[in-house]
Amino acid sequence: MTSTSLELFWISGSPFAWRVMLTLEAKKIPYTPRLLQASQGEHKKPDFLALNPRGKVPTLREGDFVLYESIAIMQYLEGRYPARPMFGRTAHETAAIWRAVSEFSSYLQPPLVRVFGPLLAGKAQEKATDVHAALPEVHAELEKLEASLAQGSWLAGTDITAADTTAYPFLKLLVRAGGKGEASQFDLGLPLSDRYPRLAAWMEHVERLPGYERTYPPHWRQ
Amino acid sequence: MTSTSLELFWISGSPFAWRVMLTLEAKKIPYTPRLLQASQGEHKKPDFLALNPRGKVPTLREGDFVLYESIAIMQYLEGRYPARPMFGRTAHETAAIWRAVSEFSSYLQPPLVRVFGPLLAGKAQEKATDVHAALPEVHAELEKLEASLAQGSWLAGTDITAADTTAYPFLKLLVRAGGKGEASQFDLGLPLSDRYPRLAAWMEHVERLPGYERTYPPHWRQ
Repeated sequence: MTSTSLELFWISGSPFAWRVMLTLEAKKIPYTPRLLQASQGEHKKPDFLALNPRGKVPTLREGDFVLYESIAIMQYLEGRYPARPMFGRTAHETAAIWRAVSEFSSYLQPPLVRVFGPLLAGKAQEKATDVHAALPEVHAELEKLEASLAQGSWLAGTDITAADTTAYPFLKLLVRAGGKGEASQFDLGLPLSDRYPRLAAWMEHVERLPGYERTYPPHWRQ
Repeated sequence: MTSTSLELFWISGSPFAWRVMLTLEAKKIPYTPRLLQASQGEHKKPDFLALNPRGKVPTLREGDFVLYESIAIMQYLEGRYPARPMFGRTAHETAAIWRAVSEFSSYLQPPLVRVFGPLLAGKAQEKATDVHAALPEVHAELEKLEASLAQGSWLAGTDITAADTTAYPFLKLLVRAGGKGEASQFDLGLPLSDRYPRLAAWMEHVERLPGYERTYPPHWRQ
């Protein structure tokens, strides 16, 4: 089986798909992107539901093997393509990376989604109370991330890891949401470079990853 | 360093600590349990906050090394004590286990907590609307789990894995919540053996794990 048999089904701007694509690029694994048009409901059509009954991206196909759930795909890739490890080379590196992934997923991702979700969907007015309620949690966690970046350029360790690829797309969606007209009424902490300068530099670091442009949401260029 | 230098800080009945203790037992790793009394706020006192500034369990200490976040601890143990793997021996086994862990964490754990949390805290009356709202999600996912158990006795593969130890404590807390006086007004699907017989048998399977009794919440015996 050659590595080019890998297909990744994705939707433009899906942070869950994006983290897997960044992981593929960081590991330099060739793959064929299969872009689904969410606006046409392609992820809910029978052909795709046959691959993933939840109708979600990312979904990976490698020959007859199909896998979904972003972290599961990243762990599969780590075992299948061990070069350029993203989850560490030692138990202690693995621990640091997984702590960062878990803390992001448990404490920052949920309130971040409550903030950028309504803004990107054009529903920030009707959900303003909940957006405001989520922002203190967002900032408490951004401050922790900012502090952790005093140790180095990456979230866990001396090179890019799964901690970075897991978190980056969600932060980028916050930045994207900040450009929406409804955003000005909320304290989003943007531009990041003012309040969280290390986080801003870290995002630029991620964006210098070779292949980053292939992962960039196509509909953001329009 | 001997393996007995492992200390695990836990709170009776914490599902996050419980999953790590089940993992330690399944891997037959000796450890010293350090039980914190949540009722006395021991997890928020300076000594413990020096180990884990979030004041949460589980927290692992091995000599000078401290680690928190349940999945991070489980991944660390996997690297440090590779015998009796809980995350698979091959990339495809890892994929199946991680898909189960991720699906549980994303789709079942959140609504389960919304159901058993208020019941165990004696607040089911005031939160009844949200408990009722979460129950259809709970049952939709329990039905998927029940169906998946037609393939075998364990959630992913032919032996106990991280998929089982991750999910079990949350299901056990649902069962526990069903014994509360306020529970009768909610469709909890209990006893599990009536509506989800394979899930009920799976729980008994987990409970036959040698060492299970050491992980059982001490305050439930009182």
